[in-house]
Formats: sequence, structure tokens, C-alpha cells
Amino acid sequence: MIKTDILIIGAGPVGMFTVFEAGLLKLRCHLIDALAQPGGQCSEIYPKKPIYDIPAYPEVLAGDLIDNLAEQIKPFEPGYTLGERAQTIEKLEDGTFKVVTNKGTEHYAPTVFIAGGLGSFEPRKPPIKELVDFEDKGVEYIIRDPELYRDKRVVISGGGDSALDWAIFLSDVASEVSLVHRRNDFRGALDSVEKVVELSKSGKINLITEAEVKGINGEGKVESVLIKHKHDGDIVKECDHFIPLFGLSPKLGPIADWGLEIEKNAIVVNNALDYSTNIPGIFAIGDVNTYPGKLKLILCGFHEATIAVQYAYNIINPGKRYVMKYTTVNGVEGFDGEKKEAKKAAVIKI
Amino acid sequence: MIKTDILIIGAGPVGMFTVFEAGLLKLRCHLIDALAQPGGQCSEIYPKKPIYDIPAYPEVLAGDLIDNLAEQIKPFEPGYTLGERAQTIEKLEDGTFKVVTNKGTEHYAPTVFIAGGLGSFEPRKPPIKELVDFEDKGVEYIIRDPELYRDKRVVISGGGDSALDWAIFLSDVASEVSLVHRRNDFRGALDSVEKVVELSKSGKINLITEAEVKGINGEGKVESVLIKHKHDGDIVKECDHFIPLFGLSPKLGPIADWGLEIEKNAIVVNNALDYSTNIPGIFAIGDVNTYPGKLKLILCGFHEATIAVQYAYNIINPGKRYVMKYTTVNGVEGFDGEKKEAKKAAVIKI
Repeated sequence: MIKTDILIIGAGPVGMFTVFEAGLLKLRCHLIDALAQPGGQCSEIYPKKPIYDIPAYPEVLAGDLIDNLAEQIKPFEPGYTLGERAQTIEKLEDGTFKVVTNKGTEHYAPTVFIAGGLGSFEPRKPPIKELVDFEDKGVEYIIRDPELYRDKRVVISGGGDSALDWAIFLSDVASEVSLVHRRNDFRGALDSVEKVVELSKSGKINLITEAEVKGINGEGKVESVLIKHKHDGDIVKECDHFIPLFGLSPKLGPIADWGLEIEKNAIVVNNALDYSTNIPGIFAIGDVNTYPGKLKLILCGFHEATIAVQYAYNIINPGKRYVMKYTTVNGVEGFDGEKKEAKKAAVIKI
Repeated sequence: MIKTDILIIGAGPVGMFTVFEAGLLKLRCHLIDALAQPGGQCSEIYPKKPIYDIPAYPEVLAGDLIDNLAEQIKPFEPGYTLGERAQTIEKLEDGTFKVVTNKGTEHYAPTVFIAGGLGSFEPRKPPIKELVDFEDKGVEYIIRDPELYRDKRVVISGGGDSALDWAIFLSDVASEVSLVHRRNDFRGALDSVEKVVELSKSGKINLITEAEVKGINGEGKVESVLIKHKHDGDIVKECDHFIPLFGLSPKLGPIADWGLEIEKNAIVVNNALDYSTNIPGIFAIGDVNTYPGKLKLILCGFHEATIAVQYAYNIINPGKRYVMKYTTVNGVEGFDGEKKEAKKAAVIKI
């Protein structure tokens, strides 16, 4: 059972920065995210892509942005429930929200911040009849821990960067890697494609193009896949894992059923005041919310988080008044006991 | 005569970032600031102080923040009118705003963004009867160009970091530096005080404490100052410049008379939409504005700027519709012809 001041659904950049602004107000945060690590899309989808519109960063890789945010919020010791999706919400009699994940983890907090971005990213699944039956039994859509594949026979399918990069990476880990793609051309970085071709020539990757995985066989776990080749007919490929990597597509998911006012797949908030939703105590910030003139930019989410925590403070500490102090003047005091602050001017006798 | 799309009053961090967001929309900006360089308070008052609450910067010196913003906006070639204060505004018949500075420079633009921070920083002046008569005739409150003092005799008064740091710096430039302070203790960084004491011992700074400058003499320019010493009586000190450094205090200044709705020294804006003021075409962003729940934080100003330029676009390009593009996807195309963008995924035949 997890108790916190602000329960944040979504550990992308905006959810993460909320921890910092809440920490300045001595509020503790816990983040839930369906992905295996913090950072949302920035970590999962485009860690190596440069972003140009974060203020005072002429250019920053999405992954570095997340690393910097992680360092900034570290003193405020955020809690994490990762790899689980917030499933249900209930307002208890004393006003506390109870949020339970798809894996049954219970969270309790007086305020909930939905910072869910475009939603939780669900893998695009190829149309294979047996696919769902083999999930977590050898079929994985996201590679969470490459060690799972050590000395195993792996079949990857897909023709983008993700399929290329993981085929290259796993060629050093797995005992056998096959990469199946239905065309003869790949959509990816030139050097990744070249590397795959090279590894194919040296026998480290078994490259099967103009082919598609159409079936899965096995007793209780993946034992082989059926590959249909455009010219060569059917191939039965023995393997321990089948990893279809066809990208992720965002879905608002269970949040859509929480009784929140939704407009065009986004949660309507009061941007004139506090970014609150129609349910008192629940706020929505970042790409997941909408209001007149909304821009889905990370920097806008940072502002929304900052404003919303001020109002969350009033719910968590009724009757108390918080007077904002500048970090430049008062520094930052972490929950870990560390204090960062500017060197104070001293009065010095000569 | 200067013509631009968005005329920005105030070249602090928020004014500067406006140039970037406007640039993405192909709008050109020109900034007016009373200070001699961009960056506002960050450059003028606390360039060496760390800021902890800029998103994804666990710690950044105010001066470095400004340097990074300057680099970020460089591709959009902002114009500057520095060292001048925006004095009057007039809406011409065609809807264009005409803004004239205290030095008579004329600016024309269809939209005006007031990003004036806490106002223009005015020097605190010591109570010396003749002080105003000698302004620009040997009396300066801000050191704009240290070369002005080369081989001259300079009297600085004040007991803070600014007085200490400039006394140290000018001891290498001027032929003679006197530092006058009314107490025996200084309010500043320990190493600055130690350095001044050391330079005093080696004869490079003439340190006169427990004393105040009470009068100025000269024919058309400063020729000497009258120093009253607590114990030793009057001293007439011959000099070419007298520089009182008692800090700067912010004043809203002439903007207060532009017909804008003002509340507690700040400009009321519509935060539910576009951060517009009561005068159509004039927006106010950053610390200079106010609305319910306003926080005077740089990061909030960044958001306000970003939203406001979208609406400015509609005024500047009536009837045209701008569809926001992500910099991660589309890159940044400067007015200088340079384009920054993420490496595109290519379709590569194997």
C-alpha cells in the first residue's frame, strides 16, 4: 500500500517536473507509469532525438532531458510504480483517492495529477491468431531486460529503427537472432541498416526479408513461429522468443472511464486557474489536458504542473498558506536532507 | 526607424525566449531594454547566482541561462535597442503601434509584448544635492564600459558586491580608485572583501571607510567630491568620476501611463486565453503581468510567451492559420538560413 501527497499518473517529463515543484512546497509525490522506466515517450520512443524548444536548451536529446529532470527531482525522493497501468480510481469517504493498477498495487493520496501524455503506449500487434495466447510466454512487444534473451533463440519482426537496433544488440546476447521483415527495404538510420547487413553476412543475424510471421506454435510457451516467405513458401523457425516490434500507439486507456470530462481524447481543465478537472482533487497537466489555445508542448506542461501544485497544496494543507520563495534566494532543501543554495553575501568586518 | 512583427519591451529571459517561439512561426522580433545588455536582472543583478527551478536544469547560473537563451534565439536574428527606455506608445490609424524611447528611437510593430519584469531598474541615488547636475558629466550609476575609466581618477561609493567588484576591476584600469563606504563592514562575498583589503594594503585601492560622499564640485564636469569622515572630518578628493553603487530598484516606469489595466504594479492579462492586456495587440508576459494564481517565475513566463505568440500570429497574419509543428519532427529553420533538425529515418534498400 502506497500513501503520498500527490499521486502522479504518468512519469514523463511533466510528471517528473511536478515532483520538483511539489517538493519545494514540502509535498511528496509518487509516480505510476505503464512503461518500465521514467521519461515517457522521451525515453521509450525517441531518447536519441534532439528537442529544440526547451527553454535555454538550444538543443537537447530527449534522453538527456529526462536524465537532467531525474537529477533535479532526486532530492525530493519520488516513489515509482513502473510497468503498471493505473486502472481504477475511487474517492473514499475521507476524500482520499484510491488508485489501483492493473497488477493490483494500491495507492492512496489526497490529490491526483494526471500527466499521462498522449496516453499509455500500447504496442501495435501484428494480426496473428495465437499472438495474445503467447503473451508473457515468449511473446514480448517491448524489450524490458535484454538479459532475458541471453543464450536464447529470438525472432524479431519489424522494419524500423526499433527492430534494427534490437536485432543488432541481441546478436551479442542471444544464441540466435532472426530478423523478419516483409519488404526488402528498411525505414531506419543508414548505419543501423548497414550494420544489420554486415551482421547478416557474418552469420550473426539471420535476415529473412520479403517474409512475415503468420503463426506461433508451442506447448504453454513459444517453441516456433511460422514464417510465410513471398517466394520460398513456408518456413517453420524454432525459437524461444518472438518479439514483434511494430511501434507503439498511444491510448488514453482506463483513465477515459474515470468520469472525467473528455474532449477529443484529452481531459478538459480549468486553465484560467489551477488546471483542475471536473473532479475536485484531480488535476490534469501536459499533453493529456485540453483548454482553449492548448499547445501540446513539454514547456507548457512544466508551467501547468507548477501552477497546479500550488492549488494541490491548499487541498493537502487546508487553511495553511504557502508563500512562494525564490530558489535563488532560499535554495532547495531536499527530503534527503541535502540543501543546495546560493552563496550568501556575508557581512564582513575589515 | 525600426519595423518588426513583435516589439518586445524588456530583454530579460522571457522577452528573449519570445524571439524563439515567434521565430518558429516566422515572426520577427525586436527588443527594447533600458539596460545595456540582454538578460534583465539575470545579467545585471545576479549573473553568478544559481537558479534551481528552471526545468531540466538542476542548477544553472543566471548568466549562463541568458547565454543559452541567446544561443537558442540567435537563428531568429532579433534586433535590439539597448540602453533606452520605452517611453511612449501610440496606436496609428492602420493599427500599427509606434513606440518611442527616451532617446527618441522610433519603433513600429503590429503587436507589442511587454516583458518588462519588475520594471526598469533604476539606480538608488544617494542624497547629494548636486548629484543630478553631474549625471553623464562624471557621475554614473551603472558601469557600461570600463574603458571609460582608463587612466582616470575614480571614486566609488557603496558597501555591497557591486561596489567591491568594480573597485577591484577598475584598480587595474583607472589611474586611481577610491572606495568610500560609511561603515567598517561590507556586505559581500568574503573573497571580494579580502581582495579589496589586500589591494588597499598594496596601495592599488584607496579604501576610505566610516565616510560618506556628501558633495560634488566641478565646472561642467566632476572635478572633486567632498567626503565627510566620521572621525577625521572633511576630505576633498580630486577625481574625474564619481560612481555611487547603491543597487538598483525596479520601477514600472512610463508603461504605467500607457492606459493598461494595472493592479498592484502589474499589468492585468487574460490568462484564460492569450495573455492579452486590455489594449488589443498588446500582450504582457512574465513577471510584469498578473492574473489569478500568478507566480512570478521565469518558467511561467516561458509558457506565457509561447501561448501569446500564437495569438500574435493571428493579428499579424489575419485569416492565415498556423499549424504547430514539433521541433523534434520538423527542426528549426533560422532566418539566417541555418536549419537544425533531427536525423531523418531513411528508407534503405538492402
